[in-house]
Amino acid sequence: MKILITGGAGFLGQRLARELLARGCVKDPHGAPQALTELVLLDVVRAGDFGDPRVRTEVGDIAERSVLERVIDDRTAAIFHLAAIVSGQAEADFDLGMRINLDASRLLLETCRQRGHRPRVVFTSSVAVYGGDLPDVVQNDTALNPQSSYGAQKAIAELLLNDYTRRGFVDGRVLRLPTISVRPGRPNAAASSFASGIIREPLNGETAVCPVAGSTRVWLLSPRQAIAGLIAGLELDSAALGNQRALNLPGISVSVDEMIAALREVAGDEVAKRIVREPDARIEKIVGSWPGRWDTTRAERLGMSGERSFADVIRSYIADEQVQMR
Amino acid sequence: MKILITGGAGFLGQRLARELLARGCVKDPHGAPQALTELVLLDVVRAGDFGDPRVRTEVGDIAERSVLERVIDDRTAAIFHLAAIVSGQAEADFDLGMRINLDASRLLLETCRQRGHRPRVVFTSSVAVYGGDLPDVVQNDTALNPQSSYGAQKAIAELLLNDYTRRGFVDGRVLRLPTISVRPGRPNAAASSFASGIIREPLNGETAVCPVAGSTRVWLLSPRQAIAGLIAGLELDSAALGNQRALNLPGISVSVDEMIAALREVAGDEVAKRIVREPDARIEKIVGSWPGRWDTTRAERLGMSGERSFADVIRSYIADEQVQMR
Repeated sequence: MKILITGGAGFLGQRLARELLARGCVKDPHGAPQALTELVLLDVVRAGDFGDPRVRTEVGDIAERSVLERVIDDRTAAIFHLAAIVSGQAEADFDLGMRINLDASRLLLETCRQRGHRPRVVFTSSVAVYGGDLPDVVQNDTALNPQSSYGAQKAIAELLLNDYTRRGFVDGRVLRLPTISVRPGRPNAAASSFASGIIREPLNGETAVCPVAGSTRVWLLSPRQAIAGLIAGLELDSAALGNQRALNLPGISVSVDEMIAALREVAGDEVAKRIVREPDARIEKIVGSWPGRWDTTRAERLGMSGERSFADVIRSYIADEQVQMR
Repeated sequence: MKILITGGAGFLGQRLARELLARGCVKDPHGAPQALTELVLLDVVRAGDFGDPRVRTEVGDIAERSVLERVIDDRTAAIFHLAAIVSGQAEADFDLGMRINLDASRLLLETCRQRGHRPRVVFTSSVAVYGGDLPDVVQNDTALNPQSSYGAQKAIAELLLNDYTRRGFVDGRVLRLPTISVRPGRPNAAASSFASGIIREPLNGETAVCPVAGSTRVWLLSPRQAIAGLIAGLELDSAALGNQRALNLPGISVSVDEMIAALREVAGDEVAKRIVREPDARIEKIVGSWPGRWDTTRAERLGMSGERSFADVIRSYIADEQVQMR
């Protein structure tokens, strides 16, 4: 089976690639395991190929038709479309966000349509599609009312994927991801960057800035469970999703104060003290528009699970990333 | 005040133009009446200009940037964006629907953004943005799950208009219109065309085909009330819409059997007998995915009203269109 990952050089893309290669098999649309024979990683920078002969790395601008035509052919059985401009950057540069989050997503679907073989497409959406006047617990049928350009672009791409699926051009699945925490590496331009930074930097002996109030409630998922959710999303029986292809992935609802308390529990007071509070109205406005919790009945019925405690999430991060606590 | 109507040669466009010209004044964003000085009617065919010196007719393809740049300048205080490919045609010709219902709507918003003067934009959306598993009465915060390409394109344009408004590029208002009935003229490619045809044709002494079951529930609004709603939508205080610019216009919920009974009440049994039932699965599928009723609390609080009885709607049609019953 040939699989494409867009955003293949990114954190989730690389981690997903590693997991797919390790599993070696992916279920086909009939539920039968098929050997992974070729994994194409497309990104604007060259992705790591793990020295694995099954991996092909491609560099290109995903908003260009010729690039997508190079990486999608009629043997491409599945596509994980992860490439995106993150929330903070899409808010700062409207045109860039529209080009990558909307135009490139449409072009990807359109390329599949032209190929005519109806591949499975897993599209990652976000908490940011919700916003405005929200119930305490967002339901699967709560209306999308994004309050950021990133969220609007993701919501539009969801609608496109639904319609391209309904018309039989692709077999699409939308996974709405909670905020991923704890991400390794460095801060990025996502408004949610702090949700990893306030754990990661203190564990590395560095100061971290917390730009939102301690009472801010966030909906989090660990990288480990996010990757499991993406693969489960691909392997889901298409009929189980019916006429609404979007699935809210399970997560854990914690306040920022509870996140810091969990860090204290796992790593001690010295580490937790490295968080400095510096409210940033721009970030508070975006993050505050997202839901702090959503109903996960549908995803759980389809066999997906979230996290039990945020302290466990921190422990997984320390184990997976071999963090040397300072 | 200079106003643009796209789709200005269409039935609603012409009727809206006539009403605006007759009123002579439109409220500005501060609620102060301003004289209508120029009314631009854009369409793919030349619109009627009513012999009124305030009217300028323009012919062009709304999906072309140069056409929009010709009709939108920084004196264009308000835009009614009515131009669209109707539901049946957008389902039959996917690319055409995407080009007009999505690309042209985006280009219109983008042209406003380039001009930089933040005009009011009234965008007509539809019952077709809803679909799938619906509650008996659709609420303002019921999730959009369109089951037609037309509905998907309208829902996407709504999201664009919301975000362009949030960012201050335009002052947008989305009016979700019920199915308009009774339209004068001839049948068109809308899946809902029958909702006018089964009244209009029998009154003209002609046979009309009813392609859906008598129990099918539709959500209707007369042309007269639709035009009143469009103008009220333009004149609404922008702040009253807040961060969700879409408003479900009030209407009346009737079954097709009740529509026919109303025709019998107004015009007699001989007329009502001119309806022939010929179920059409393609049309039933699209129309059956639309809501038969929605909650109108929000619109009513903003001063909008629907219909009292469908028999009254038929009587208005007969009066407005000077129908000679046969």
